[in-house]
Order: sequence, then C-alpha cells, then structure tokens
Amino acid sequence: MEHDGKLGAEAPTWRFGAASPVLGAARSQSIRALVYRMYDFLDKGDTRPVAPLAHGDPAAFACFRTAPAAADAVAAAASSGVLNSYAPAAGLAEACSAVAAHLSRELPYEVSPRDVVLTAGCNHAIEIMMTVLAAPGANVLLPRPGYPLYASRAALSGLEFRHFDLLPDKEWEVDLAGVEALADENTVAMVIVSPNNPCGCVYSRHHLAEIAETARKLGIMVISDEVYDHFAFGSKPFVPMGVFGEIAPVVTLGGISKRWMVPGWRLGWIAATDPNGILRKKKVMDSIIDYRGISVDPVTFVQGALPHIIANTDEAFFANAMGVMREAAEICHGKLEEIECITCPHKPDGSMFVMAKLDLSRLDGIEDDVDFCSKLAKEESVVMCPGSGLGMKNWLRITFAVDPELLEDGLERTKCFCHRHGKIKEANS
Amino acid sequence: MEHDGKLGAEAPTWRFGAASPVLGAARSQSIRALVYRMYDFLDKGDTRPVAPLAHGDPAAFACFRTAPAAADAVAAAASSGVLNSYAPAAGLAEACSAVAAHLSRELPYEVSPRDVVLTAGCNHAIEIMMTVLAAPGANVLLPRPGYPLYASRAALSGLEFRHFDLLPDKEWEVDLAGVEALADENTVAMVIVSPNNPCGCVYSRHHLAEIAETARKLGIMVISDEVYDHFAFGSKPFVPMGVFGEIAPVVTLGGISKRWMVPGWRLGWIAATDPNGILRKKKVMDSIIDYRGISVDPVTFVQGALPHIIANTDEAFFANAMGVMREAAEICHGKLEEIECITCPHKPDGSMFVMAKLDLSRLDGIEDDVDFCSKLAKEESVVMCPGSGLGMKNWLRITFAVDPELLEDGLERTKCFCHRHGKIKEANS
Repeated sequence: MEHDGKLGAEAPTWRFGAASPVLGAARSQSIRALVYRMYDFLDKGDTRPVAPLAHGDPAAFACFRTAPAAADAVAAAASSGVLNSYAPAAGLAEACSAVAAHLSRELPYEVSPRDVVLTAGCNHAIEIMMTVLAAPGANVLLPRPGYPLYASRAALSGLEFRHFDLLPDKEWEVDLAGVEALADENTVAMVIVSPNNPCGCVYSRHHLAEIAETARKLGIMVISDEVYDHFAFGSKPFVPMGVFGEIAPVVTLGGISKRWMVPGWRLGWIAATDPNGILRKKKVMDSIIDYRGISVDPVTFVQGALPHIIANTDEAFFANAMGVMREAAEICHGKLEEIECITCPHKPDGSMFVMAKLDLSRLDGIEDDVDFCSKLAKEESVVMCPGSGLGMKNWLRITFAVDPELLEDGLERTKCFCHRHGKIKEANS
Repeated sequence: MEHDGKLGAEAPTWRFGAASPVLGAARSQSIRALVYRMYDFLDKGDTRPVAPLAHGDPAAFACFRTAPAAADAVAAAASSGVLNSYAPAAGLAEACSAVAAHLSRELPYEVSPRDVVLTAGCNHAIEIMMTVLAAPGANVLLPRPGYPLYASRAALSGLEFRHFDLLPDKEWEVDLAGVEALADENTVAMVIVSPNNPCGCVYSRHHLAEIAETARKLGIMVISDEVYDHFAFGSKPFVPMGVFGEIAPVVTLGGISKRWMVPGWRLGWIAATDPNGILRKKKVMDSIIDYRGISVDPVTFVQGALPHIIANTDEAFFANAMGVMREAAEICHGKLEEIECITCPHKPDGSMFVMAKLDLSRLDGIEDDVDFCSKLAKEESVVMCPGSGLGMKNWLRITFAVDPELLEDGLERTKCFCHRHGKIKEANS
C-alpha cells in the first residue's frame, strides 16, 4: 500500500457517526425491529417448532403457496431477456394498464392507466405518500392501532402525524368524531386500511361512505390502504374506498403481496381513484412521479409479468386460499376464547391479523405486553407482536396466516403459558 | 352512493397539494426527469431508429443480453416456491455471504457477511447512505461531474452537499486540493466513483491511495461507488477502493446491474470494507440496518439467486461483454474526434459513459447544451444528456452502451447535425 507512514501513525478523529435524530425517531416506530427483538428471546434448546404469530407471511407455508400461473409468469418474464432494462418512472405501460383495468372492474368509473404508478411493494407506496405530502406544517391522520410504517416514514420526511382511534366495540370502525376533532386547517389526508391490519375487520359500504363524507367536510384526501383487497373471508365483502372517490379524492394503495401470497416479490401500486381529477389538478400525481424518479424501482420483469399474473390466476386459487384463511381465523379465534386472560373484541373477517387484549390482572409476574411476548417466546417458542408496537399497550397483534396445525399448536402453548402464569392456579388447587 | 346531498352540493376547499420545497429541491437534481424531457423533443414523423445515447441501459440490446446462467438462476428461484417470503432487513444470509466472498477475493482482508447489506439496486444504496449520514449540520463531498442522485437524496434528507471537481486534464482524477479546501469539521464523507459514470475513467491504485490518505487526514469515510466494478476495458485494471480500507474506512456500494447488464433486476449492496471495524464501532452499520428496516427490500428470489449468479456466470460472458464495450467505446471516441465542435478530453477506459465538451463558438444558433440536445433530438432522433444535469454546463454525457451499429449511426447523425449548425458551412462554400 502506498501508505504515508506519518499520517498512518496518528490515530485520526473520525468525524462521522453522530446518529441522525430523525432516523432515530423513525426507527422508534419500526415494528420490524420490535418483532426481531422477540425472536432474540427464543430458547435455542427448545426443539419444538417456532410458532411465528407476529408477522404475516403465509408464503413460508406450503399450504399458502402462490398460484402456479403467477410463478410461471414471473419465471418466463425473467427468462425472456427483454425485461432486464430500467422501466419508466411510473412503471411499464402494460402493467399500469393492467392495474387500472383490475381496479376499474369494481368502481363506478374507469381508472386511467395514467393515474397508476407502480411501486416496489405497498411499503414503498406508503413511503412515497408520506414523502410527497410533507409540505411545511402539513399533518396527516393515522389510525390507531395501525401499521407503524406510516408513522416511521412520516417522521422521516418531517410530516406531522396524529392518531385517531379505531373502536374495538364497533368492529374497529373509525372514530369519525375523533377524526374531526383532530383535524385542522393543515390536515391534508387521513389513512384507512380495509381489510384491516392489525384488527382483522372489513369496512362496510356504509362506513366507507361516512369516511368519504368526513374527508369531504375536512377538505382532505383519503389514503386507502387496500393491500389486503379481497382478503375477506367473513360475512362482509371487500368494498374499495374508490367507490366513493367522487365524494372525496381517494389514493388507493395496493399490491400483489397479500392476495397472491408473495410479499417477497415486491410489487405494489398507487392509484388515483378520483373521478373528478382533483389529485391530478392539485399536482399530487406529478409529485408522486417526481419522487419515483429519485426512488427505487420495482423489478422490471415482475412488472412485465403482472398483466399475466392478473389475467391467468385461477379463481380456484383465491377461493382455496380464502378457505384455508377462514379455517385459520376460526382456529385462532376459537383458541383465544379458551384463554381467560386474553379477549378478542372482534372475530376477524379479513386480513391476516387479529388484535387481542391482555388482562394483566389475571397474570402473575407479567409486567406488560412486551414482557408477556418476551416470556412467551422464551418459554414456549411462540412469537407474537406486542401491541405497544402499534400504540396499543397491553394488547397483542396475532397473525393466523400460519399453517393451521402449527397455529393451533402455538395457541395451545400460549394457553399453557397463561395458565402457568395465571394468578389463580386452578389446575393446582 | 350514500352521499349526503347537502355536503356534496358545496365545492369543498381541498387542503392538500402544496408542493414540498424539499421534494422540489430533490427533483431539480433529477437526471431522469431531464433525460425524459429530451425524449419529448423527438419528431414522431422521423422513421429512423432513435439513438438512445443518454441513459446507459445495455440490456435493451441483444448484443448485451445477460448470461444464461444468471437468467436461469432467477427463473429457478422464482419457480422454487421457497423464496416468496419477506427477507431479513440485511438480506438473505446466503446472499450476504456470497457478496462478502465476492468482494474479499480482491482485498487484503476478509469482508464479514455481517458487514454486507443488500439493497434494491445501487440507487437504493445511495438513498440509504445519504439518509443515514444526515446528522444535523453534517455535509458530504460529491464529485462534479457526478451521478445526480447523490445530490437529490442528500437534499431530500437535509444533508448538505458540496461539489469537488474531477479534473478533465488529469484523466478525471479527483481534485484532492479542492477536497481539502471544501472540507470542514462537519464533513463526514466523500464520494468517489470508479470506474466512473459519467467520465469513463478508471482510477489507478496510486490515485485511490491518495484519496484514502486525504480522507484519513480529514477524518472522513470514503463512499466508493463501484457499481461499475470490473467494467474496465482499457489499459487500467479495476482496483477496489476497499484495498485502502485500513487507511480510511470505506463503504463500498455495488450491484449486479452493470456487470451482468440487468439494471431492471434491482439488486445491489452496501459493504463495509473497513478492516479496522470503525464503521461498526461508530454505529454506521446499525443505522444502515435501521433504515433498511423501514425502507424497501430487494426481491427475495433475486437475493436467493445471487449466489448462483455469482458462482455460475461464465468468465467468457464477461470477456465477451467487455470486448463489445471496448469496440463501442472505440467507435464512440473515434466518431466524436471527427466532430469539430465536440472534444473528448479522455478516451473512456471503463463504465458506459464519456463526457464531451461542446464548443458553442463553432455553432450557429445553439444557445447551450440543453438547446443542443433538444434540437439534436428533434432533428436527428439522437438523445444525449445535457451536461447541465450533472453540473457541467455546455458539456454532454454520452453513453456508448448501445448496439455498435446504432451507436455509429447516431454519432454520424450528430456529426451531420453539427455540420449543419456549424458557423462556417464548409460543405456549402
């Protein structure tokens, strides 16, 4: 090495390394980091399979394998040799058209392909929206409980966020009076999620209309997170928020991760479901394209495969997947009912999650939800997400998108754990 | 629709839509937007093929098709059914190990897989570094000419950036005296790019050692953008900056986009090539992982394919690709030499680009580089990138990663254009 000995001998003071407080604030909202911490508590000596009830990733289980038509479309696109280039900032035209047609089937108007922007998964769509809305002083209203990435990305881009409540006693509907009380003249958007992560509810047509009227009254857009579109297996059908796009402009976020059970494929979208063209007129779509131009791109051949994935996936695949998911939700709800210190205000109708409340007064030596989940991981190799990570202290977020046998086993172990830590040890009396 | 007529009748004042000045600042740096603007000038009536000499994307041409082993690995991974899940924030362990081994082959020490983080392409790696370094008051030194995404992402995260010059008369080496003059106690990093986009130079071992000594003197890290690693076809071999990681800590950015000619696959990495572990001690690696946890992920099956892509790609593929690239660089340099109003200070040795200077005094009715490129697109269907987009007014950035026949044709048309707009119309005299 041509290394100057004199300089090398001194120990330099490295000037970098001061942590960014903004990144710190963003990180404090990260649910991924919290869930990883729970995995650290696992007892390596426990030979039982880990029951991963924290993060929803059905793709890990054979029973939730994606449709062969989808895998074939992606493999063919990768091999084609003509989809290795960069794609335009909005996405490949044929993929944007496929999404527009896909969404239009359920709306009272046509979505233009020009109003669709492809993203590297729905998380990327959230990142984009929380960045482009960050005008000075602006604020956005987020649901609690919710998906923490909204708050992380808002914090990172300097967009103020305020939480409104979802009401457990009203099937987790939005507290619209709370929304009105929170909003002010700087509020630009509210976020809703249906089917809902983490609550497992599906909003009715009537409730979505109420949300639209509230947004109109406040002069704000609705960001409708529909990454779980059609992931509804209860009595309520999925209704897209865009149905009410004429009342208030709706930005619909979606993707193939959930319905096709391929979160690792990272393909999502942002669509203006806004028949009055207000989002375009207000340059929101331009800002989205601008940000996409300096952000990451979804993989080109996955974009190229998208029209085939949408066109060729058999309805039987979805019917079967929802059948297994319904069974899993039944098992989950049934087993939780057997556990005295856990209550589930609402049996899940959709998504992959349910929120359950811990009754600490029935437990001995358990401080809070984080302590509960830490000890459950350590003693039973069952990983759940503490509600604290979603702003719901002493609640749990539980996924049922797990092989039904392992799900049942994991919840049985949770029942044993609760019994063992119960204040009144009935079994020993 | 359950639409309240009274509310609906009023025309609401929509509160959103104020543009974010930060996004505006970021966008003003976007080269992608500038290049798109040039495409808008194309004459739709021109039946000649467009010569796309602005953005480097060889994958569009059959002569630069990726290695069959790479395409096979990705198609097999997509079909496997076991790589559809989310991956860990740092990336799949086996892929991180493959990158670490790949980099270690050319370094005097071993890179640990723990020091590798996978990204959704090298652009994502740039985004991550410009975000994690944005501590209050910090600044970063960027090369001019350079790759504008560094400035865009720095602007977006509130990280101050300052430009040092690359010296056209010294084979585009870094102006190290300029670097020292720019730096202050808040400088945290300098960025170098070798093989260099947009200059086409490859830095010598000696120059890299000088850069390391300068960084050490200033107490800053070197961010070494090696997305064009081994993309060297001239007399100078590619040398990784990490060779000098003991003098100053080096963050190496890389990816498969260029060498495998698959920019659409979006897989890159950040590696700490820092044998003294300073980046780890200073928590830079932790910040990177934190940001990855709230950012997008590279596609899981592409990550899973990476070890196979690296292991199974035939050396003959690289040799052939570099042979075609060398031929293209020769054509490009030779044709530019024939054009009086354009000078090329350095014949390219690497990357896919060359910088060429416009002599406006030899042209009639051409205002500047943007005007030159706009008219060239309109009249000759040749698209070049105005140097203004890279901070080099009245220069051009030209890519030669184009099918050689089309490249030659495009440059011949450029020659005709320059002749037609020349001040002294020799042909007519």
